[in-house]
Amino acid sequence: MDNKMKELKKIIEIDKAYNHAMTLLSWDLETEMAKDSIDNVSKTMQTLSELQYNNLVNDKFKKLLYSINENEINDLDKKVIKRLKKDVFEKMSKIPVDEYSKYNSLLSKSQNIWEKAKNENDFNLFKPYLKEIIETNKKFIRYKGYKDTPYNSLLDDFEEGMTVAKADIFFNKVKEELVPFALKVLEIKNKRIEEIKKKINKKFDKEKQKKLSYELAKIMGFDFNKGVLKESEHPFTTNMNNKDVRFTTHYHEDDLFSSIYSTAHEVGHAIYEQQISDEIDDTIVLAGGSTMGIHEAQSRFTENVIAKNRLFMPLLVKLLDKHLELKLEEDELYLLVNEVKKQYIRTEADELTYPIHVLIRYEIEKEIFSNLDKEIDIEELRKKWNNMYEKYLGIRPRTDTEGILQDTHWSVGLFGYFPSYAIGSAYASQMFESLCKEIDIEDTLKNEKFYLINNFLKERIHKYGKLLKADELILSCCNEEFNPQYYIDYLKEKFSRIYGVINV
Amino acid sequence: MDNKMKELKKIIEIDKAYNHAMTLLSWDLETEMAKDSIDNVSKTMQTLSELQYNNLVNDKFKKLLYSINENEINDLDKKVIKRLKKDVFEKMSKIPVDEYSKYNSLLSKSQNIWEKAKNENDFNLFKPYLKEIIETNKKFIRYKGYKDTPYNSLLDDFEEGMTVAKADIFFNKVKEELVPFALKVLEIKNKRIEEIKKKINKKFDKEKQKKLSYELAKIMGFDFNKGVLKESEHPFTTNMNNKDVRFTTHYHEDDLFSSIYSTAHEVGHAIYEQQISDEIDDTIVLAGGSTMGIHEAQSRFTENVIAKNRLFMPLLVKLLDKHLELKLEEDELYLLVNEVKKQYIRTEADELTYPIHVLIRYEIEKEIFSNLDKEIDIEELRKKWNNMYEKYLGIRPRTDTEGILQDTHWSVGLFGYFPSYAIGSAYASQMFESLCKEIDIEDTLKNEKFYLINNFLKERIHKYGKLLKADELILSCCNEEFNPQYYIDYLKEKFSRIYGVINV
Repeated sequence: MDNKMKELKKIIEIDKAYNHAMTLLSWDLETEMAKDSIDNVSKTMQTLSELQYNNLVNDKFKKLLYSINENEINDLDKKVIKRLKKDVFEKMSKIPVDEYSKYNSLLSKSQNIWEKAKNENDFNLFKPYLKEIIETNKKFIRYKGYKDTPYNSLLDDFEEGMTVAKADIFFNKVKEELVPFALKVLEIKNKRIEEIKKKINKKFDKEKQKKLSYELAKIMGFDFNKGVLKESEHPFTTNMNNKDVRFTTHYHEDDLFSSIYSTAHEVGHAIYEQQISDEIDDTIVLAGGSTMGIHEAQSRFTENVIAKNRLFMPLLVKLLDKHLELKLEEDELYLLVNEVKKQYIRTEADELTYPIHVLIRYEIEKEIFSNLDKEIDIEELRKKWNNMYEKYLGIRPRTDTEGILQDTHWSVGLFGYFPSYAIGSAYASQMFESLCKEIDIEDTLKNEKFYLINNFLKERIHKYGKLLKADELILSCCNEEFNPQYYIDYLKEKFSRIYGVINV
Repeated sequence: MDNKMKELKKIIEIDKAYNHAMTLLSWDLETEMAKDSIDNVSKTMQTLSELQYNNLVNDKFKKLLYSINENEINDLDKKVIKRLKKDVFEKMSKIPVDEYSKYNSLLSKSQNIWEKAKNENDFNLFKPYLKEIIETNKKFIRYKGYKDTPYNSLLDDFEEGMTVAKADIFFNKVKEELVPFALKVLEIKNKRIEEIKKKINKKFDKEKQKKLSYELAKIMGFDFNKGVLKESEHPFTTNMNNKDVRFTTHYHEDDLFSSIYSTAHEVGHAIYEQQISDEIDDTIVLAGGSTMGIHEAQSRFTENVIAKNRLFMPLLVKLLDKHLELKLEEDELYLLVNEVKKQYIRTEADELTYPIHVLIRYEIEKEIFSNLDKEIDIEELRKKWNNMYEKYLGIRPRTDTEGILQDTHWSVGLFGYFPSYAIGSAYASQMFESLCKEIDIEDTLKNEKFYLINNFLKERIHKYGKLLKADELILSCCNEEFNPQYYIDYLKEKFSRIYGVINV
């Protein structure tokens, strides 16, 4: 038995090596590589992916995996085995290899077409691809099977255990409680914000912004001995292991807060990965963050709950003054970073309206995948999109580029992914409630004791990696089940106060 | 047949993917990675090396390789097959796997010990390791076989086709003609240089030096669409393929010319790799530069023959003024960068004495590997080293740190490598002779038409990759065989003029 586990671990080591290499290749592609080497990198990535696939998806490995007697191994190894069975043989392997590889070719073409369609505001270009991606996903759901409704299979891919039944409870609250509140806030003109904005209406040197971001990341707890901060067009976080976690931000001369809040967001993802325990990291299979929602909870926590908190303003005032010689009052800054705006683009949305952008995508996806046999009318999706933006956010996209074409997700087959963004934000509010019961948040932020926050998150969430699922982690962190009401109340209270709206 | 070649190429693609990944991992390790991730990277590298080794060194591949009928494939494929047979089955596979892996463990330990020994000036610490590495290399030579003298096997590893008989002709000229000349030059005190040095006796901002290096690399012909320039402690060049070539330099505030000449050196290696033809790069097996000597010829060509040429001074004067506000006369600068100094350290040696440092190592290595049965007295090596430095360069190392412990090569098993440094310099002089017959070098350098130089090198040398051996490339470039006299004459003429010495 011991030998079988050893053999298994050797194979997992190989999987890890492929992952490590491919993660670095992607990181390099996004942050450093010269433009003419793209084709060669694609070829290498494709070769390594095939090798990685063949290393795990084969009868010999399957036989080994299923022949291990679970009575003879420790609890952690049991979890490793369970995870491998689910990831490799319950999902992945049910799709015929040739269909999967055909789908991957479709996706790479589709992403190019989507880019072109978005640039040229031509939804018709993208339509046939979107249709084929949806139909292929339906076919794959048939192979993999599902419970209750096909969409559950997709939700589970990103947020294990998530179902339409559970998500509906959350998104109904967003629809019923947040939408009317947000629509009210959006009607308010805050003259003071307009005044303050004039103060930052100038260019800020990128090198100086860079120094600010480094200091901010360090203060918030990112360990530069275990990671790298660099620049890329779209900020992201990636990790090879818990001792090599990297994230990027971007610097715009005329948008100072873009780099600051990208850093504050990504550092949440990054600290999570750095705080996964060595024991879990060593298993490889359970290393890395848990679900998408839990990951997003960490980043929205640092970005919004913490870095847009009134108590965070003294630190930010200090950093702006030190690095950019920008002098702002704490109250001014607080208004500025919490401005609620009519905004077509999800990624640029404020904290309050963000979940409403996600609600719209959730409702569309839920309908697409409610019935595997019903053919989808792609033109209808566009209409629904625009109608919902009007209904829920009071704005009707003027172009598809700022409408249904704005996100890359569907063009690369990511259905079921969006909900985790909003659910993650809801987790973050509940985490904060729990945190505040344990530590003195005022003292913590005032005296920059971020280690108190990070230790709390480490012990309750981070250290477990993929060992625990989202619902178990929320229970571990909050001593109660997921309750979206915290999030709704948090947003309404915060923005009522800022905008002087009576809580509706 | 066609199928066999296809099968072979699939296996080579895999080899390439491993290479690509490992090259990037090393690059990252040297230039960016956070310090705590070293262990994880070592593990990944080890796993990938094993996979790469097993991909090629196995009976199935051997059978495939030797079953291909050479009458049915094109000339390029024939060369690919020949190269593979030599690299994989004629050398590598003759060493038993367990002995090879034991040797690799020895080397990684040995390198650590060498570092410690060098830092602490304690040769005794390193002695047993050096002895074991030498003995293991002798054993490996027995496995691989050799012609005439065992050292030929090692020379051939780095400079295919090189033999002691050929190298002796070259190094005897160095010993007989250069040594007495250099000893004479070393006695001369050039007061003017001392005066000029005072002008650069200040600190130069690293960011400004960086900009100078970027511009210099660009002007000399490095294509930034096909590569990256970054910073590292020890400058080096690496390449994933001809469209992804990377090199580093280092910046010292108090040593301005260190970054400039490191850049000028590495850019020679880098342009070589960038100019290998796509057809050759696609074969993978023949991609990359030819021998070590040919590679070093390219870098010493750009660094010394070109960038220390009197005709290069106007450009350098301009760049120093533009980026560092340093105002120097062309003649002053020329004296400064060509100063001949008594110097213990090979890597810091000037152009004239450099080959003498190599001569010393060549003589020692030649003796070590003249007889596989004779046991080596390591203490004797140190004595020889010091005696030869005194005899050939007029200086006796005061410590082993600046003596026999200075180079890392032997600690990682690189015997037979040193000669290629000096032979490369000799190639470079002969290349220059040939170049000057084809283009107007004065006009070329005056008007910064580096493309003329690079095109010449591309057509005569670079584009061939590993397709041609060193002697074939020299013939292609110079229309005659390797003739070390060009180098000797070049050095004596150049430094006679600078130092006003009568050519001895």
